[in-house]
Amino acid sequence: MGCNMSKNEYKEKDIVISSRVRLARNIRNLPFPIYLQSDSAKDIVEVVEKSINDKNNNLTPFNKIKVEDITANNKKMLVEKHLTSPEWGRNDHAAVFIREDERVSIMVNEEDHIRIQCILDGFQLNYAYDIANEIDDLLEEEIRYAFDEKYGYLTACPSNVGTGMRASVMLHLPSLTLSNQMNNLMQTLARFGITIRGIYGEGTQAMGDLYQISNQTTLGIKEQDIISNIHSVAKEIIKRERDLRYEVLNNNKTYLEDKIFRALGTLTNARTISVEESMKLISLVRLGTDLELIDQDIKKINDLMITIQPGILLSLYDTADLQSFDVDKLRANFIRKSLIKNT
Amino acid sequence: MGCNMSKNEYKEKDIVISSRVRLARNIRNLPFPIYLQSDSAKDIVEVVEKSINDKNNNLTPFNKIKVEDITANNKKMLVEKHLTSPEWGRNDHAAVFIREDERVSIMVNEEDHIRIQCILDGFQLNYAYDIANEIDDLLEEEIRYAFDEKYGYLTACPSNVGTGMRASVMLHLPSLTLSNQMNNLMQTLARFGITIRGIYGEGTQAMGDLYQISNQTTLGIKEQDIISNIHSVAKEIIKRERDLRYEVLNNNKTYLEDKIFRALGTLTNARTISVEESMKLISLVRLGTDLELIDQDIKKINDLMITIQPGILLSLYDTADLQSFDVDKLRANFIRKSLIKNT
Repeated sequence: MGCNMSKNEYKEKDIVISSRVRLARNIRNLPFPIYLQSDSAKDIVEVVEKSINDKNNNLTPFNKIKVEDITANNKKMLVEKHLTSPEWGRNDHAAVFIREDERVSIMVNEEDHIRIQCILDGFQLNYAYDIANEIDDLLEEEIRYAFDEKYGYLTACPSNVGTGMRASVMLHLPSLTLSNQMNNLMQTLARFGITIRGIYGEGTQAMGDLYQISNQTTLGIKEQDIISNIHSVAKEIIKRERDLRYEVLNNNKTYLEDKIFRALGTLTNARTISVEESMKLISLVRLGTDLELIDQDIKKINDLMITIQPGILLSLYDTADLQSFDVDKLRANFIRKSLIKNT
Repeated sequence: MGCNMSKNEYKEKDIVISSRVRLARNIRNLPFPIYLQSDSAKDIVEVVEKSINDKNNNLTPFNKIKVEDITANNKKMLVEKHLTSPEWGRNDHAAVFIREDERVSIMVNEEDHIRIQCILDGFQLNYAYDIANEIDDLLEEEIRYAFDEKYGYLTACPSNVGTGMRASVMLHLPSLTLSNQMNNLMQTLARFGITIRGIYGEGTQAMGDLYQISNQTTLGIKEQDIISNIHSVAKEIIKRERDLRYEVLNNNKTYLEDKIFRALGTLTNARTISVEESMKLISLVRLGTDLELIDQDIKKINDLMITIQPGILLSLYDTADLQSFDVDKLRANFIRKSLIKNT
């Protein structure tokens, strides 16, 4: 984890699921991917590959995945793991380089030529920024970025021009959700240039009471200021959520315990379950685990929230052997095995 | 169990919870309880007590309970156990004699002077009738019943004149209920002089998919014919319910398993639960036990359906020691202890 700050940030893991920094970069004198010739697209994949693999650097190895080589389900799986985007899968010349621990990914030929992303567990925004920066510097040794003295990094979508950076934290806010405070919070944050979205970004629902907090603006603001801004806003939301958790626990314990244990009872017994219902119930079990009402491992619960997504789930099974693709049934079985101990 | 017939009948215990025969009797030349003087009312209690206790008979001992001696909660408890009626508790001069195994009760000064009731587990209507008859004969040695050569036994309510008998079986019909066939069945049975009602008689809801099937008519029909009629109608309903259980199990196993296991999951995890929700879920667990999807004891499940009623439940706790009378919380704890093994 490196420095002390990272360790301290990681303490907020009761509420912060993950921290993410993404940098959008483009190559000077080349059209954006949507207008790009096939040969040029291939050249970019090659030059990125050369930068991260041929160097005498201490980076963990990266695996290359090309859109043209993978199945529709594997595309889905990569999106569910937050390693690529749906748009990435729609460009035949796109590729992604994924570090073996799946914490760093570099999309090539998505909306921009290059998108560097670092996603870490817990509240480690500064550390994620350091890592993304490191990759950025490494690529810059081989590549001349499209950069304007006045505007900064040039990007396909004007909303990314400037730093090209999007910093976000994924927060688990079951108590704020239960007490109907999310709409109010969203409106307040919008005034500070902060966006709240569901687990899979723009236009997605907040499944499992998970919310992504990210910066709206990339132009006319320094990278470190974006990080600081998200950091302090997240700190404030974390405090509200945590206070509320203990407030409900102290004032209405039976109500809360009942909700949490019923959720556990359903998850450990259902024979068929949708992703929406699973997320709703796992959210309650996660809350119960944090409040020490339930004896489960928080890290395992976090992983479960990702693993039960349809694409990832199906990738775990040898689908050729499956009698049917009843994913709701597979999900129910998978959840039971994960949550019931000694089985 | 006595004869072979009783044993065979008992085999239907997957669907038949209990069999009940009730005889309404009144004493010649005395006004019905509603018009009765206090002294006469006391005399009836005494003569009944003498008949069942002073005899050189082989009856199990009876306990006497007088309305004036018991708490409101204990009145409720007796009704929930089907040993008395709500009306019984409203007459200050009423008493009840309850056999120690709680299978036989004799209400005195309810609507009629005497109501003899025998209630047995499973499908044992003939045996219940034999026992009620035995008590009836015993009382008749001391008491001259109000009996008319033409009409038969005279009773406070005209609907009981004749045999004074009501025979009923309590059936568990979850599959017929789930498939919305109950309304249709009720209309068909009405044409055969058969009434279907909820677990606590007239005007009560069919909690837990439990239904009482009983005769509408007592006049102009022989006692044995009433028994036979209820018996053969019950047989037909039992067959329909059982066929349907296996039909759903074979055609839609995941759907059924999911419903049943979710019910078990909620019952073994809830921290607060109403009697209505409990009954609904226990009904599914009972179905799952019968279909051998769940490893529970049917007899224990039957008992649970009775024990979780508010009056009985509170009578199990020393209410003076209770912090609060949160009966939904007590019920949830009681159900968890009953259904979770090795705890």
